[in-house]
Amino acid sequence: MAIWLEQAQADFDERFKTFLTTKREVSADVNATVADIIADVRQRGDAALAEYSKRFDQLDFAETPMRVTPEEIAEALRSVDPQIVDALKFAAARIEKHHARQMPADDIYEDAIGVGLGSRWTAIDAVGLYVPGGTASYPSSVLMNAVPARVAGVPRIVMVVPALAGAINPTVLAAASIAGVEEIYRIGGAQAIAALAYGTETIEPVAKIVGPGNAYVAAAKRQVFGTVGIDMIAGPSEVLVIADRNNDPDWLAADLLAQAEHDTGAQSILITDDADLGRAVEAAVERQLKTLGRSETATASWRDFGAVIVVRDLLDSLPLANRIAAEHLELAVDDPDALLSGVRNAGAIFVGRHTPEVIGDYVGGSNHVLPTARSARFSSGLSVLDFVKRTSILRLGPEQLRQLAPAAITLARSEGLDAHAKSVAIRLNLEG
Amino acid sequence: MAIWLEQAQADFDERFKTFLTTKREVSADVNATVADIIADVRQRGDAALAEYSKRFDQLDFAETPMRVTPEEIAEALRSVDPQIVDALKFAAARIEKHHARQMPADDIYEDAIGVGLGSRWTAIDAVGLYVPGGTASYPSSVLMNAVPARVAGVPRIVMVVPALAGAINPTVLAAASIAGVEEIYRIGGAQAIAALAYGTETIEPVAKIVGPGNAYVAAAKRQVFGTVGIDMIAGPSEVLVIADRNNDPDWLAADLLAQAEHDTGAQSILITDDADLGRAVEAAVERQLKTLGRSETATASWRDFGAVIVVRDLLDSLPLANRIAAEHLELAVDDPDALLSGVRNAGAIFVGRHTPEVIGDYVGGSNHVLPTARSARFSSGLSVLDFVKRTSILRLGPEQLRQLAPAAITLARSEGLDAHAKSVAIRLNLEG
Repeated sequence: MAIWLEQAQADFDERFKTFLTTKREVSADVNATVADIIADVRQRGDAALAEYSKRFDQLDFAETPMRVTPEEIAEALRSVDPQIVDALKFAAARIEKHHARQMPADDIYEDAIGVGLGSRWTAIDAVGLYVPGGTASYPSSVLMNAVPARVAGVPRIVMVVPALAGAINPTVLAAASIAGVEEIYRIGGAQAIAALAYGTETIEPVAKIVGPGNAYVAAAKRQVFGTVGIDMIAGPSEVLVIADRNNDPDWLAADLLAQAEHDTGAQSILITDDADLGRAVEAAVERQLKTLGRSETATASWRDFGAVIVVRDLLDSLPLANRIAAEHLELAVDDPDALLSGVRNAGAIFVGRHTPEVIGDYVGGSNHVLPTARSARFSSGLSVLDFVKRTSILRLGPEQLRQLAPAAITLARSEGLDAHAKSVAIRLNLEG
Repeated sequence: MAIWLEQAQADFDERFKTFLTTKREVSADVNATVADIIADVRQRGDAALAEYSKRFDQLDFAETPMRVTPEEIAEALRSVDPQIVDALKFAAARIEKHHARQMPADDIYEDAIGVGLGSRWTAIDAVGLYVPGGTASYPSSVLMNAVPARVAGVPRIVMVVPALAGAINPTVLAAASIAGVEEIYRIGGAQAIAALAYGTETIEPVAKIVGPGNAYVAAAKRQVFGTVGIDMIAGPSEVLVIADRNNDPDWLAADLLAQAEHDTGAQSILITDDADLGRAVEAAVERQLKTLGRSETATASWRDFGAVIVVRDLLDSLPLANRIAAEHLELAVDDPDALLSGVRNAGAIFVGRHTPEVIGDYVGGSNHVLPTARSARFSSGLSVLDFVKRTSILRLGPEQLRQLAPAAITLARSEGLDAHAKSVAIRLNLEG
């Protein structure tokens, strides 16, 4: 049974605040272990990787080489159900088309006094993509991370994936191949992150690491941050559905459960102005829960973190939604545009009853790597921008320098920076 | 005496690599202390802030209120030398004009089959700006952080600044006022970061914290990251000057020293194809060092981390520059455009002999908050983008859903996610 809140309750504000700050993730402190692993890989390189793979993945590089061969990739592509391959290609094409629009344009210009200013974007030289093993090994996530990197023009994309006894999910290899990733190593965990950040005899280091992973991988990414760039550290998934009375409760229940089945820490929230709909959705959730393959996970998530919030007016859902800042926000209402412009904080918005969030997970074209745990208040989903960086350019001639010099010298002096003042003044034979 | 490297040396590659990986920053481990302070501020709010301010800043909020009054800000603006105020206004106007061009445009469109896709940018609701006390309290940095936030449309900008015995550098307050910052608190250190992240009775929490600080502030920013967004953690400043023989050694020496005077950990590097120029610049540095107010700092920086690298051909400087990925790169050569296009990794490029880096520190218009310690390989300088976030939007009608459904259902099933498949299928009366 999920939490039930009503705006009409006297202590609603207090209860909503408590709900908002409930922690959904127990983060084990693995920092010391991870630090040791990273230090070991920096020190011993491939030898350390070989040892960890033997220990954690029952994998001997003397028998199965660390790098996946082109033949293995081709074989995976052949072995996967053609319907799935087609679906992956369909998704990749849509993702590519949408992300191509995100490529930022250079802006090089001269201002009114002839100072040349500019922003120039270049792709990151090399990016590492971590793909988890086991059940969290999603081919769709390979596309969502690799396609934007390729669109950005990243010349080298390296994938690492733990391979228990050497085996990699062939659909993951197929997705990698479709996304154009050719450099793949069967390593995982903190040791894979260390290898990407610092390099080994076999693996050249990269400049940035993206992709989801377990607590060890997340801790390792935090520790190597600075040496390389990293993407966000994603928490459990979440969906907020804002719904009016004119909904089929079964549709909404399915949407709530699509989040809940991801993880026991996932969160599904319904906000509605109709308590009857709320109760009907709750009942539908209970019914559908029985039919799911991941019923246990979904049941725990809905029981521990699920919520139905009844508001007086649909417009009252907006301030709540902006505080929740959900990763996914569905607007299942007759007039979604009346709400859309009032949403400030959300990773992605799914507009109208015929846009289930799941479309965005796979084939909408937009990215499914989105800010969780209220971080949509200050951050964005993965995009081409995560794979490029901007260099600013400044260009003065003697005349422009003459015009800007006095203010620069004044400010340098006021900050007590003699050499700063001198560096400008000396070019104009002024007093520094 | 700086390091001297020549490309002609047999072991140049090895020596350059060692030079590249030399650590310039000793980071004290203050994590435990900082964690305690953060927990204390979360627990006790204003009372904790009052206690820390008494202890660290000899400041009693019973006598001097935590929040700076509008009268104090107005008084500071009056008390500062009008020439400095004018220079700050001149700088702010140029920064504003340049940054206004960085505002990203929304992109809302329909694709060929009528799927609505979109990227919508919104300003972050509230941003905190940390300003250090003491000699590192730069008014120019107030402008560089606050103006882009205001350009982005951030409705609430909060500044915190430690105030020894209550006093704040009036030029800092003047800069804040010019940048339109009105909510200013005299608190500093990890406790100020905690107050911004979690809020207290007096201070509403913000969604993102930017600005430089000491080891405690940096550690606190790392620890609250996730609860709020943070900007980069900046290391010591650095400049790389690529120069041909046709330079006045004194100009280049002044540029190198403008970095060196910042910090003993700062780094100044000259790459030239003319060993004679290299020696002349070294001599000029030694001469100028004697005249600087911050001679001790600059001497230590140049001695410990300064470098002159002699290459055979100016074009050979490009691969080195891309590996160094300097925060600031000056192209002091006859034909800077011949080099410009080959630079992939740099925070900012200063083109030609009449563009000393110092212009970019103050009045160029571009931002002086730039990636240090080789992080220009994967990150960018501060910009309007740091103060906005992107929400993606997806909008399907029944017909679009019908077209995208089969691939989505196929992929959901292949990932073992029943409820995902059902959430799409149920809307079309298909088998989930």
